[in-house]
Amino acid sequence: MLKNSRTFIIEWGDCDPAQIVFYPRYFAMFDHSTTMLISAASKLTKYQLFQAYDVAGYPMVDTQGKFHSPNRFGDTVTIESEFTRVGTSSFDITHRIVKDGKVTVEGFEKRVWVGRDPNDPSKIKSKPIPDNLAKLFRGEA
Amino acid sequence: MLKNSRTFIIEWGDCDPAQIVFYPRYFAMFDHSTTMLISAASKLTKYQLFQAYDVAGYPMVDTQGKFHSPNRFGDTVTIESEFTRVGTSSFDITHRIVKDGKVTVEGFEKRVWVGRDPNDPSKIKSKPIPDNLAKLFRGEA
Amino acid sequence: MLKNSRTFIIEWGDCDPAQIVFYPRYFAMFDHSTTMLISAASKLTKYQLFQAYDVAGYPMVDTQGKFHSPNRFGDTVTIESEFTRVGTSSFDITHRIVKDGKVTVEGFEKRVWVGRDPNDPSKIKSKPIPDNLAKLFRGEA
Amino acid sequence: MLKNSRTFIIEWGDCDPAQIVFYPRYFAMFDHSTTMLISAASKLTKYQLFQAYDVAGYPMVDTQGKFHSPNRFGDTVTIESEFTRVGTSSFDITHRIVKDGKVTVEGFEKRVWVGRDPNDPSKIKSKPIPDNLAKLFRGEA
Repeated sequence: MLKNSRTFIIEWGDCDPAQIVFYPRYFAMFDHSTTMLISAASKLTKYQLFQAYDVAGYPMVDTQGKFHSPNRFGDTVTIESEFTRVGTSSFDITHRIVKDGKVTVEGFEKRVWVGRDPNDPSKIKSKPIPDNLAKLFRGEA
Repeated sequence: MLKNSRTFIIEWGDCDPAQIVFYPRYFAMFDHSTTMLISAASKLTKYQLFQAYDVAGYPMVDTQGKFHSPNRFGDTVTIESEFTRVGTSSFDITHRIVKDGKVTVEGFEKRVWVGRDPNDPSKIKSKPIPDNLAKLFRGEA
Repeated sequence: MLKNSRTFIIEWGDCDPAQIVFYPRYFAMFDHSTTMLISAASKLTKYQLFQAYDVAGYPMVDTQGKFHSPNRFGDTVTIESEFTRVGTSSFDITHRIVKDGKVTVEGFEKRVWVGRDPNDPSKIKSKPIPDNLAKLFRGEA
Repeated sequence: MLKNSRTFIIEWGDCDPAQIVFYPRYFAMFDHSTTMLISAASKLTKYQLFQAYDVAGYPMVDTQGKFHSPNRFGDTVTIESEFTRVGTSSFDITHRIVKDGKVTVEGFEKRVWVGRDPNDPSKIKSKPIPDNLAKLFRGEA
């Protein structure tokens, strides 16, 4: 399965009065890591992907976060992201935030591939992940 | 000119490691106050406004914030918002965050009324504020 | 077990380009609902609670979100929050976001009660939930 | 005066239903750029700076944003940041967000250098910027 990672510095604005990352911000970090993982597969930005594949997004269905130890502003962390399942129109990804060689936070997510609903463009509807992308997600291509 | 106010409790997640509101969050609070001010005029939610008036938003052109004294999680504050100018396709609003009778933060904003660009629906383009709304914004109706 | 609910309008700034709530923002909404639930029990703001009980927070250990149907800017939603377990130094809370009588999102969380570590005040350490608060959380007082 | 720049991809979660950056997020981007500018001068992370200089932050006093053209998720942008004034205990910084050689957003900020108030550690108080840092900020060292 395809993997990707990115390294960055925790921002002051990501942290709360306890001086550690405000946990909802971890989900925003994971969301961008998922975008970067899919971008690594498709060689497209998320906006270009929307144009190329007539997709409206890959919204979250179910997600979990486990917080083992805190991260603080100024810390350099790496998020390692990996597909763990690629289905017909949904997929699972696992994220690990690593600092100094230690996993500090884990994220698990199940998302669905969607387009605009042909019967009501104000709504979204699941659709199959294109074959060439599914293969890239599985690391087969 | 039309005025509106709303009162709420500062959230833990709005504050940074200095234990005070992270200033970009004030702009998010002002943005929602502008939405509530326009909603008070139109009697519509922002989504309903988009449907009723074929508008795509009222993006910010120029904004300023002045921070006189800090606000902290758990503080009850009131944002007082007021139109200060209503032009053909743009308008100005002033916000004041009041705690215990004291103005702690001021916000000034200039926004433009936009629709989708008929020549390129992926873009937005300024358009005149509908007359009935402009009157309501000016407090004339 | 103690319950609490709060009703509010989904903000424009909580939504993403798919025009629905950006899911990390749900966790920020849940976090404030937990604060309001604990405040309903203690009759104190979070800041006052910190002063009164020498507590440094109640950080998240494990959380899950299930997203059944989207919410959009301008929607009025209610978050119903409820203690589901109150242990010695940790507790579980469930949140449900209800729109038009339908549960659109569910959140599950396990948190730990912490103070500053006496051996290193830059760190936090779990400590027992005060008895009077634990009773209020359980709805026994 | 010292300058610094950083290049990154606009995140999906930074954008609103108009599919462009939600403007309060620009201030969060500027805030991190200021941190990186000061870090470039001091060779310290913000956390290390707090330890080394007994500083509690450099909160915003007055800020302005001018929005010339929108940025969208997937866009690669560069923020160019520069000290424009370094006073005794306050300083000004200008930020420019550049995409494809064009300035899309400008930010202006006035901040104050603060420590904990010796008479009430729950409060912050302005203090002089250390000489060696002020020289680095001015690009003299």
